[in-house]
Amino acid sequence: MDTLPDLDTLKYNAEGLIPAIAQQFDSGEVLMMAWMNRASLAQTLRSGVACYWSRSRQAFWQKGESSGHIQRIRAIRTDCDRDTLLLLVEQVGVACHTGRHNCFYLEARQGGWQEIAEVEKDPALIYGGGG
Amino acid sequence: MDTLPDLDTLKYNAEGLIPAIAQQFDSGEVLMMAWMNRASLAQTLRSGVACYWSRSRQAFWQKGESSGHIQRIRAIRTDCDRDTLLLLVEQVGVACHTGRHNCFYLEARQGGWQEIAEVEKDPALIYGGGG
Repeated sequence: MDTLPDLDTLKYNAEGLIPAIAQQFDSGEVLMMAWMNRASLAQTLRSGVACYWSRSRQAFWQKGESSGHIQRIRAIRTDCDRDTLLLLVEQVGVACHTGRHNCFYLEARQGGWQEIAEVEKDPALIYGGGG
Repeated sequence: MDTLPDLDTLKYNAEGLIPAIAQQFDSGEVLMMAWMNRASLAQTLRSGVACYWSRSRQAFWQKGESSGHIQRIRAIRTDCDRDTLLLLVEQVGVACHTGRHNCFYLEARQGGWQEIAEVEKDPALIYGGGG
């Protein structure tokens, strides 16, 4: 994307962050939610692959940098309040670090949080250098 | 839902809030993102309709209380980090206070944030007591 939209019209929180929902562009599957700051959003717009801000590491988090499971950007939207982003992405591999396709695999059922999705990729192989 | 899942296993932020993404259960459309606290989530689970926490008003926000545009809960999920909720809902009317079906109607295109969705319901009629 040659010209970036005005990133100052977005509303960031006290830490300078804005939540970003990643959705598979064709199936509509909600993959994950993470955070971006102004710089990681600019990087995402320029590169065409999702780059978040890791709150735990306080560093850029180039999604897929170790796993290869990148997210190619198809579109970036914001909402009426301009305080949330929706990324339409093409997910390579799986989105979740547990090896599931998306992160929302715990569902409120019968008084508990029940797992509703299978592990597709062995996390040891995703991150262990085995694959 | 008779028995609630353990809401203390979720991770709330410093203000006691957790982000909640509302997705139309059948189409996969991401409708909006708002916040819940423990009590509004418990209320949502008990009542079967989405109840958020309004950060601006510091009060329960029973979605649709003035517009009638409620969200009937089909499922509630959380993610691997248990710090985000995904609500699968049946949206009555429109989700966005602007009268659009969902809130994410601004897309990064050609250096700007362009409107990509039409207003379906006149906000004056939604909230003005006219309908």
